Amino acid sequence: MEYHRTCHLDTTRPKSVLHVVGTSLKVNLNRSAPPGSKFFSVKCTANVKCSVSPPPGETSHLSYVPLSENSVLLISMSHASREENEEKLSVRYYDKKKKVLGNAILHLTAVEISLDVDADRDGVVEKNNPNKGSWKWGPNGHGAILLVNCDRDSEKDNIKTTDSEEVNISKASDLKDMSLMVLRTRGPARLPKGYKLTMYISQGNPKCVQVFRAGSPEVVKNSHDFVKDYPLVLSSEVRSQEVPYPGGSAEMNFYVEGLRFPDEDFDGLISINLNLMEQIIEGIPETPIFTDKVVFRVAPWIMTPNTLQPLEVFVCSTSDNRQFLKEMKHLVTKNGYKLRTINEDMNRGDRWIQDELEFGYIDSPHHSFPVVLDSPRDRDLKDFPYKELLGPDFGHVTRVARSRDVSTLDSFGNLEVSPPVTVNGKNYPLGRILVGVAFPETYKRQNMTKVVRDFLWAQKVQKPVALFSDWLYVGHIDEFMTFVPAPDRKGFRLLLASPDAGYKIFRRLQEDGHGRAKMFDGTFEPVTVDQILRDKNLRAQNTDVQSWIDWNRDVLKKELGLDDDDIIDLPILFKRLEENNKYSAVAYYPDMVNMIVLGKNLGIPKPFGPKVNGRCALEAEMCSLLEGLGLNCTFIDDFASYHEKLGEVHCGSNVRRKPFDFKWWNIEL
Amino acid sequence: MEYHRTCHLDTTRPKSVLHVVGTSLKVNLNRSAPPGSKFFSVKCTANVKCSVSPPPGETSHLSYVPLSENSVLLISMSHASREENEEKLSVRYYDKKKKVLGNAILHLTAVEISLDVDADRDGVVEKNNPNKGSWKWGPNGHGAILLVNCDRDSEKDNIKTTDSEEVNISKASDLKDMSLMVLRTRGPARLPKGYKLTMYISQGNPKCVQVFRAGSPEVVKNSHDFVKDYPLVLSSEVRSQEVPYPGGSAEMNFYVEGLRFPDEDFDGLISINLNLMEQIIEGIPETPIFTDKVVFRVAPWIMTPNTLQPLEVFVCSTSDNRQFLKEMKHLVTKNGYKLRTINEDMNRGDRWIQDELEFGYIDSPHHSFPVVLDSPRDRDLKDFPYKELLGPDFGHVTRVARSRDVSTLDSFGNLEVSPPVTVNGKNYPLGRILVGVAFPETYKRQNMTKVVRDFLWAQKVQKPVALFSDWLYVGHIDEFMTFVPAPDRKGFRLLLASPDAGYKIFRRLQEDGHGRAKMFDGTFEPVTVDQILRDKNLRAQNTDVQSWIDWNRDVLKKELGLDDDDIIDLPILFKRLEENNKYSAVAYYPDMVNMIVLGKNLGIPKPFGPKVNGRCALEAEMCSLLEGLGLNCTFIDDFASYHEKLGEVHCGSNVRRKPFDFKWWNIEL
Repeated sequence: MEYHRTCHLDTTRPKSVLHVVGTSLKVNLNRSAPPGSKFFSVKCTANVKCSVSPPPGETSHLSYVPLSENSVLLISMSHASREENEEKLSVRYYDKKKKVLGNAILHLTAVEISLDVDADRDGVVEKNNPNKGSWKWGPNGHGAILLVNCDRDSEKDNIKTTDSEEVNISKASDLKDMSLMVLRTRGPARLPKGYKLTMYISQGNPKCVQVFRAGSPEVVKNSHDFVKDYPLVLSSEVRSQEVPYPGGSAEMNFYVEGLRFPDEDFDGLISINLNLMEQIIEGIPETPIFTDKVVFRVAPWIMTPNTLQPLEVFVCSTSDNRQFLKEMKHLVTKNGYKLRTINEDMNRGDRWIQDELEFGYIDSPHHSFPVVLDSPRDRDLKDFPYKELLGPDFGHVTRVARSRDVSTLDSFGNLEVSPPVTVNGKNYPLGRILVGVAFPETYKRQNMTKVVRDFLWAQKVQKPVALFSDWLYVGHIDEFMTFVPAPDRKGFRLLLASPDAGYKIFRRLQEDGHGRAKMFDGTFEPVTVDQILRDKNLRAQNTDVQSWIDWNRDVLKKELGLDDDDIIDLPILFKRLEENNKYSAVAYYPDMVNMIVLGKNLGIPKPFGPKVNGRCALEAEMCSLLEGLGLNCTFIDDFASYHEKLGEVHCGSNVRRKPFDFKWWNIEL
Repeated sequence: MEYHRTCHLDTTRPKSVLHVVGTSLKVNLNRSAPPGSKFFSVKCTANVKCSVSPPPGETSHLSYVPLSENSVLLISMSHASREENEEKLSVRYYDKKKKVLGNAILHLTAVEISLDVDADRDGVVEKNNPNKGSWKWGPNGHGAILLVNCDRDSEKDNIKTTDSEEVNISKASDLKDMSLMVLRTRGPARLPKGYKLTMYISQGNPKCVQVFRAGSPEVVKNSHDFVKDYPLVLSSEVRSQEVPYPGGSAEMNFYVEGLRFPDEDFDGLISINLNLMEQIIEGIPETPIFTDKVVFRVAPWIMTPNTLQPLEVFVCSTSDNRQFLKEMKHLVTKNGYKLRTINEDMNRGDRWIQDELEFGYIDSPHHSFPVVLDSPRDRDLKDFPYKELLGPDFGHVTRVARSRDVSTLDSFGNLEVSPPVTVNGKNYPLGRILVGVAFPETYKRQNMTKVVRDFLWAQKVQKPVALFSDWLYVGHIDEFMTFVPAPDRKGFRLLLASPDAGYKIFRRLQEDGHGRAKMFDGTFEPVTVDQILRDKNLRAQNTDVQSWIDWNRDVLKKELGLDDDDIIDLPILFKRLEENNKYSAVAYYPDMVNMIVLGKNLGIPKPFGPKVNGRCALEAEMCSLLEGLGLNCTFIDDFASYHEKLGEVHCGSNVRRKPFDFKWWNIEL
């Protein structure tokens, strides 16, 4: 059904109307007909297209058409006017003897209006894309994209806020973090009296977006008075505002700034509308006679799995970890990556850089930058993310929990992401987020805080999987799992800690006559293979641990679509740590699965296992399991400085990685 | 990909495991194999089904199967056990000379568990519907339905709360407002040690639902101690709780109670889960080994259009409306409907019963009842909805606005619903809600309050349309539009007030020599037809009004899929009322479109128009426009008691109607 705007004629005075090209006007001819009218005729200028309904029969001329109860005139114009009232239409009414009874004149002005965005996602704002008003996921999808302006281009001192928290644009570089939106018009230099353009944000949370308008470019160049040059048009305070009509065939640039990531209460979609308003008389609100609408989706925060190329490795320098730092530096720099050491002034003794933050990024067709998700953990490293990372083209986002809500499950050693997977035909080309949670049925320990879980689930493109980590003393999923790249199969392997695999090695050693070989030799109170195998308690504890890891293994296979051949069991034993009558597990020797993955180079906690012919049997097993995949194992001594403090290499490091080549908007959701 | 639960064998001690029929267990045979094992054999009792992977070759016997690195045993059971450890499986390991190295024994207990609801919407809780865990709209859809328990079965004095606000069941009749959910099990009389059942509400707002459990039926019959007999299982306080295992082949009934209608922050979907939990050792949280899930959708609040059969008509008795009441009573009762007069004690002089409330209903396959939406308007009629309407099987819902938010647009004369329509192929079998709003661009007057708009939009099944009513002094859409039933076309006509249609009649009267005929004759200062037509100001005002109504007409045609032939223009003039320099319109003579529609019988405000041959020309015109549709026009004198107070028949009445035959869950959304 076509939509026509009703328009009136009047035989007592000429009328003027503004017409929007692409729409049509409809006149009920009978309504304005003088009494006694039986026929009418229509005349109009060249740019006006008229048709009469019901059709007047044989004649194509619109003269002496019989007037009926439902005679209707449809009017459209194919291009914009250069002057106001440039075109004209008149309807003459006649009595039954074809004597003229009246003449109604309508002056017409046509304008073209479109509010334009990059709906085809090629980085260019095309003109009047038919799909600009909706969002569709996938390679054949459409819809413009908005970044949360969560970096900091402003250089003001002592300001720890992101650009999105400011109501002004303070630097030209800030504009590239925003999405360009163009108001294109064609028509006379001014809109006729009684008409104006207004822009407004549709219902939904208005604190998600701000819109600025570009002033004249000359002023910008000289004065850098961004507040004047880029006035704020729409915000949470001002949901609707008149905007200038550019006039003639000019364009006007707007800059749209995302303020919030998708979350539990915000699906990420934002509509911006442009209305052409007509005011019939003063004192009565205007009515919209034409609306154009564009839709943006706020880009989600995306995590980077171990299979992506590393860019920068972060470690903390403490009073007791010189040897660890040295070995890490060697591993990182020999492979050509950048090492960034956080010194004690900043880390204040908190070495668990894995737990304080998670690196990710945001992406759009026009711009992309890394964004750190700052954990609500907030121990002594808490200032690092916004003091040292937040800056131009480096964004920062956090979620503030009610203090009583934060627990060890909120450390981001408990937040990982899988490589890309396909599960029962469903593609996850950006992988799936993995978090360790407490089951709602149990109230033994707090769950990962709701604000972080809500945030992660709301990003949608890496649909999270909940794992069970509550059986561990520290409680992080990186204590029993990681991913490494592989040249075959799905492009990766899932590595899982496995007490069964550990016992198998110890038993083999015993069978092969190495029962007296010592673990922890030279570091600690040594223990022989025989002693380990004799320890019934330790064996029982590890049977329990194997059950819990198997529960996770079952879930990971199901949720990531893995086969047994996609999984490698690493020989790792756990032991029971008893505190307050609560039973929980820690690694018995350095937890080799808690490694750093840098391309094909793995930095693995040195296990200090029993030696056979001078070589550590656990290291040898690791090498034999992983080197066939083209991976290089480097064993790093973290015993005193990390392992004995209940963490390992992965807990004590963090890696910023290259974003995916795959564009998130091409996901089929 | 099939999902298997990992299970362990141990050659040093027999193990026991609980199996859920319909799932499968997986054993990694190599893990429990004694050192030196080269072959294995499997034996099991009759109800256990075993298979080995990789398949052992030609032999179908599972004896002396070569043990490989990835030998796996898959176990399933086809029906429930009567006793714990009823079934048994053993795996024997052999060395290369087929000498026995060890024997692992697994005792098996099988249970059947299903949490059941009426997912096929036939009023009966079927067993284990495969679609019970999701919702799908439409006649081929599925998913159970929940009512908001918003009526009041309790008879306690001075309690104005609905049943949903109580945490207990206080009367047996309350159970029928809830949805039955059945836990069906089959298996031994008790669950083996270490296993238990827990029920929990998935994430999302937990204040939407409560779950009660039925106690033993004998107790209920005798004592009526509902608090004990129907203990609360889940609520906003208790999101998870252990539930008894019914044992043997018993069933356990649960009653699920909706607490909230869909709203901006609640999509109406509620998941309830049942977990079978396994605790490996004490002190460590249990892990779920089997989960069953059911989904409910909370039934939306549904409005009833004028085309539905009336059941009860409400009017207010005031000191000055005796004549009006008499005429209304005659109209209502002669057509066999029930008239309910609200006396002055209750209405305290507030006669606008249309504005205080809107009648609707909620519906499910098991139960349905009327629900009044109580406006936040809250003038002197505010106590009526919950004091006089709320009761057994009569629900009440309201939305509380921040006081400064309430305006005349919140009166429910501004809230109507269309008959069923089809728009561009999209069906609205329950019609579309219509509300008058202020455009966000204008801040001249407050909009309909956000809490009510959010509520209406969230019901989804009668997708609202926003109309423009802000040009009217009172500002209600019922001042310019209504719907009447029709035997042809779409089954109804839209009636619109039309100043143009009005002037056409007055001009015709003048032409026909009736220029001196008087309006308001005998009631008021009379005005002649000539005087009306001479009044240029009035004419100009009505031209403006016609433009605003035409704007709404265009929107209604588009959003309801109407043609001009679906619309009838009623001859009604408006006049300007100026107050605080604000221009707004009121009816010039009784606003005939503001009628009461009772089947084919219309109660129309008596217009007091100019008389021709003793008959009011406006009444004659109305009859000629409507009687062809089989409608009977009764003109009711509301001049002094309503019209002069800026309302008419519709504003002063309300109608409770029969629900739609069409079931809302059959809508294709």
